[in-house]
Amino acid sequence: MRTRPLKVALLGCGVVGSEVARIMTTHAADLAARIGAPVELAGVAVRRPDKVREGIDPALVTTDATALVKRGDIDVVVEVIGGIEPARTLITTAFAHGASVVSANKALIAQDGAALHAAADEHGKDLYYEAAVAGAIPLIRPLRESLAGDKVNRVLGIVNGTTNFILDAMDSTGAGYQEALDEATALGYAEADPTADVEGFDAAAKAAILAGIAFHTRVRLDDVYREGMTEVTAADFASAKEMGCTIKLLAICERAADGGSVTARVHPAMIPLSHPLANVREAYNAVFVESEAAGQLMFYGPGAGGSPTASAVLGDLVAVCRNRIGGATGPGESAYAALPVSPMGDVVTRYHISLDVADKPGVLAQVATVFAEHGVSIDTVRQSGKDGEASLVVVTHRASDAALGGTVEALRKLDTVRGVASIMRVEGE
Amino acid sequence: MRTRPLKVALLGCGVVGSEVARIMTTHAADLAARIGAPVELAGVAVRRPDKVREGIDPALVTTDATALVKRGDIDVVVEVIGGIEPARTLITTAFAHGASVVSANKALIAQDGAALHAAADEHGKDLYYEAAVAGAIPLIRPLRESLAGDKVNRVLGIVNGTTNFILDAMDSTGAGYQEALDEATALGYAEADPTADVEGFDAAAKAAILAGIAFHTRVRLDDVYREGMTEVTAADFASAKEMGCTIKLLAICERAADGGSVTARVHPAMIPLSHPLANVREAYNAVFVESEAAGQLMFYGPGAGGSPTASAVLGDLVAVCRNRIGGATGPGESAYAALPVSPMGDVVTRYHISLDVADKPGVLAQVATVFAEHGVSIDTVRQSGKDGEASLVVVTHRASDAALGGTVEALRKLDTVRGVASIMRVEGE
Repeated sequence: MRTRPLKVALLGCGVVGSEVARIMTTHAADLAARIGAPVELAGVAVRRPDKVREGIDPALVTTDATALVKRGDIDVVVEVIGGIEPARTLITTAFAHGASVVSANKALIAQDGAALHAAADEHGKDLYYEAAVAGAIPLIRPLRESLAGDKVNRVLGIVNGTTNFILDAMDSTGAGYQEALDEATALGYAEADPTADVEGFDAAAKAAILAGIAFHTRVRLDDVYREGMTEVTAADFASAKEMGCTIKLLAICERAADGGSVTARVHPAMIPLSHPLANVREAYNAVFVESEAAGQLMFYGPGAGGSPTASAVLGDLVAVCRNRIGGATGPGESAYAALPVSPMGDVVTRYHISLDVADKPGVLAQVATVFAEHGVSIDTVRQSGKDGEASLVVVTHRASDAALGGTVEALRKLDTVRGVASIMRVEGE
Repeated sequence: MRTRPLKVALLGCGVVGSEVARIMTTHAADLAARIGAPVELAGVAVRRPDKVREGIDPALVTTDATALVKRGDIDVVVEVIGGIEPARTLITTAFAHGASVVSANKALIAQDGAALHAAADEHGKDLYYEAAVAGAIPLIRPLRESLAGDKVNRVLGIVNGTTNFILDAMDSTGAGYQEALDEATALGYAEADPTADVEGFDAAAKAAILAGIAFHTRVRLDDVYREGMTEVTAADFASAKEMGCTIKLLAICERAADGGSVTARVHPAMIPLSHPLANVREAYNAVFVESEAAGQLMFYGPGAGGSPTASAVLGDLVAVCRNRIGGATGPGESAYAALPVSPMGDVVTRYHISLDVADKPGVLAQVATVFAEHGVSIDTVRQSGKDGEASLVVVTHRASDAALGGTVEALRKLDTVRGVASIMRVEGE
């Protein structure tokens, strides 16, 4: 074993960073054996230097992250600050000063992954970010390496623990959205401002990263269709149950049937209870991958939290250190396929539509005609009514989002349709 | 991209090998882009040269596998022959003649992994075998690389599709073992001689490989306790259901609570229906991993079959080719922890025991005394009886296998105990 230690600079020492530092200390011998050299925490950049950080030598703590990454003797920079700046500049500065980088920063990788990979390549360094998607669950490495000889056709994932906790609570207790959100907040699963989670921004960043790796194509954050889950109601869950389904906020990355384009989207969807993703409870994450040769795979585990995220960061740290000792770099960005990313209108899936309609003869015929005119084929219809009001639940066969949108617009114009109570996609079949 | 192709020798062209060859041809451009160089099938060693093999140039086919691996211009040997010899000699010959090796051979890796890794290291070559455990499911790479910075405490897996198909059929239809086996055979899930599957030999080989990687310790095949599932009855499933459990054939690799030793075992066990492994149906495989920082992870997918196994082989092929171009090698054997492997008697778990007893007063007291004398604490007892015969179902708290064995031996000597109808371990809690 090489005796000169590899030097690690830690940027950020919050929930994840402090756990990375702790494990580096308590499991130093194991890490050294697995890497083939000791690793040494050479500096920790923080915003609040006065905060007591158990187990971290105060002499290592600095507020000058830039000076730390510019030292020139740092082998690996571990970035767990999050956000775009200063993380982005610190990472590119690290490459320029000879370090490889391990990051847990989904927002930054989703937005600037291509540029950061280019910077890493320019300097012959590694950029690893397993922790950026689904916390501890090995996902980037399996997609990038284990499935490197396969053709991934679809990635269907629960990649946000907060929203899964809320939806699971709504499903199991019959609670409404606000009540379930309040419970999630009280238990620490949701932040004070839950927007990034419940509006699907967090999941969209992960979808962009996953789609990019799965399809060897650059997928920008703007390419990802995004719909939050704040409008999912207890009534939607009741409808889902009638269909033998539950509702999950899904990140869906798909290759078109003709293979010539891809799509990426985040929205709530009904999935059958028999689907492995339907059983993913509480704040757990799981990602279902369909590929040509391997078939259906699923990866399940905790998608967030200090220790799980630190586990992913440290797995990358070991890999990057091993590469460094071996004088090699790991697989970088693979975007050679450069497939076009189609807009949401091109996405083909099934839909569950609840309509409030007038309770009189001929309504179903009118509604069915509208679907037919827009080329959307109906699978099942269920009518129920009382007191002059009726509801009509239509489940369609596969149709494009554009065709469905046109159908709904036309339905709203019918005198006999009082309102469109809900539209939900049906996935995982 | 480098234009000189990497040359691949394929040993074996059965269900897996022919699929590897097919994908290498049909997806040549993708593989080249991902590797950074084209890969060329340079030779295919088979036993029956006259068999027509669609898509394979007959000029590449040879019966002389030894000459093929000795050619000296082969970059990677893909071994999908299976069995110990001639696979072992061909692999070591390949290393000596400059090739790296990708193997799907669980029996060989379980038996001779250490020696083969040593031979690879001696020649500075790679030995990869993701396909040897659980087919297409990325498992070796996640355990070895993604969790390289973590401490794995337990691996609990359904790693044999044939037996899972049989047990799932027994569970869902109430069929007996023989009936379910006959169905599995008719559907092609079980071989004409199912011994390797139903007696747990196949799963034991996988357990040895997984335990070795998870605990950074050499675990020999002989170190793995093995019990088949041929004696699981419909009555056992009925008992399991009463406990809210099902029965699975599990491969279990555990670190002792004090961390100082490990165990590996294969046997049927009851697991709660709420456990993610309980929902693994038909011939699917799934492996549940518990580690210190990451927590609970699960990896799910098809554990066998030509295409899934080929997917795993090709993922390894891409990695090995990339390493070769980069002048590096991937992670080799990691056995530095060298923990002792404890015998089955030291394994601590819970037990479900069905006794046929005389239906008279004092029997329960006698039985309970025997458990107490052997230090096995009882969790629940359920008594039922008619016509002078009674049955007693005891579920214990955690106890060592040795203590449970002593208890059962003493129970058999009681006049009031007519017989021990079944003993089954309870896992996954």
